[in-house]
Amino acid sequence: MEKQELLYEGKAKKIYRTNEENVLWIEYKNEATAFNGQKKAKIEGKAVLNNKISSLLFSQLHKAGIKTHFIQQLSDQEQLVQKVTIIPIEVVIRNIAAGSISQRLGFKEGLKFAQPLVEFYYKNDELGDPLITDDHVLLLELATTAELEEIKRQALAVNEVLIPYFQEKNIKLVDFKLEFGRTAAGEIILADEISPDTCRFWDLATNKKLDKDVFRRDLGKLTDAYNEILTRIGG
Amino acid sequence: MEKQELLYEGKAKKIYRTNEENVLWIEYKNEATAFNGQKKAKIEGKAVLNNKISSLLFSQLHKAGIKTHFIQQLSDQEQLVQKVTIIPIEVVIRNIAAGSISQRLGFKEGLKFAQPLVEFYYKNDELGDPLITDDHVLLLELATTAELEEIKRQALAVNEVLIPYFQEKNIKLVDFKLEFGRTAAGEIILADEISPDTCRFWDLATNKKLDKDVFRRDLGKLTDAYNEILTRIGG
Repeated sequence: MEKQELLYEGKAKKIYRTNEENVLWIEYKNEATAFNGQKKAKIEGKAVLNNKISSLLFSQLHKAGIKTHFIQQLSDQEQLVQKVTIIPIEVVIRNIAAGSISQRLGFKEGLKFAQPLVEFYYKNDELGDPLITDDHVLLLELATTAELEEIKRQALAVNEVLIPYFQEKNIKLVDFKLEFGRTAAGEIILADEISPDTCRFWDLATNKKLDKDVFRRDLGKLTDAYNEILTRIGG
Repeated sequence: MEKQELLYEGKAKKIYRTNEENVLWIEYKNEATAFNGQKKAKIEGKAVLNNKISSLLFSQLHKAGIKTHFIQQLSDQEQLVQKVTIIPIEVVIRNIAAGSISQRLGFKEGLKFAQPLVEFYYKNDELGDPLITDDHVLLLELATTAELEEIKRQALAVNEVLIPYFQEKNIKLVDFKLEFGRTAAGEIILADEISPDTCRFWDLATNKKLDKDVFRRDLGKLTDAYNEILTRIGG
């Protein structure tokens, strides 16, 4: 496989074309951003940690029968993925109240929901990634009703795999963000990454935060927290 | 019917008990508020206009077979209504993009939606009346799934009556906010008011604003706009 020109540079990753039409070459970056890009930092070692953690988690989902864009890890900072067109919806699954849902709706941080909550946010930096309803998704023509149902089904299936997986490692999966994409054949599959950048992880016993909230709230060294996650999941 | 003690004072109305268990006495106020109470003014004549407009519109809905809490207008500023427990959801129906949906999601003001959009907002001053999804409604235990369906059905039915009613009066019904309540018997019926405080009305030919946006955006004399609406609907 041959790495070709840069196609896109996001906040946390660079995406390159390859000599294979349907395969992309991802390079993780050391940049950390929060609050819609208002807080930024370069953190040595973050790229390697997220690449390793995300590769492990996507492999785990693959074993559980969930299709994803992930093909293989290439190096410390690089992986190969299937090319998809990202659906501009941030799909958030919440098991425990934390972050924006506590601020917006007054749920006490730490409240366990009776069942997982799925929320959609319009992936649009200019608008600040606003919460949207199913009807907004249709109106904005981001996805069809059938696609939305499929996205919710897959998101909840991922949650069902990851909750017990992390539980065994003494980690609470508080909430996480997923992105989905359409393949050339029109199939919807899980894309993007799953890492402490996109999940809230709390230690099962102490509720110590082991995710990007360490950076958002200045709670310590980000790479210590991410390293703890990588170690616990056996990386 | 006898007016008894004050039960509740809101931003735009006072609500009194009566000697009838299931009947409330409403008195409209001259206060105008916007931006979650940040902008306030006392506007002589507003109470009378909103009371008359809302009474006419609820009578119109009654003729069209839609049940509401409205019983009768008593005086310039007063009306009798059936006692209900208000469901703390602001139900917004949008036919044309304006206001918060343009700011939040980037829809150009004036865009006509292919079909009416129904949105729910959590009626909570402290939280600033945030947008909520159906799942949030269930999680907050504001209403059941069946109640939500009934609320949507009734909201769209109100829209179907009011669009042609205003069209005949050369008024575009851009969007409006409804509130619903539960009767003692558990039935869900339309409550609150329908007035230029709770609707966006644009002149059909010129798009001139004939509603609270006149106050929000300092576009002229609020009572001129509200008087124009009252005159056009024959009050």
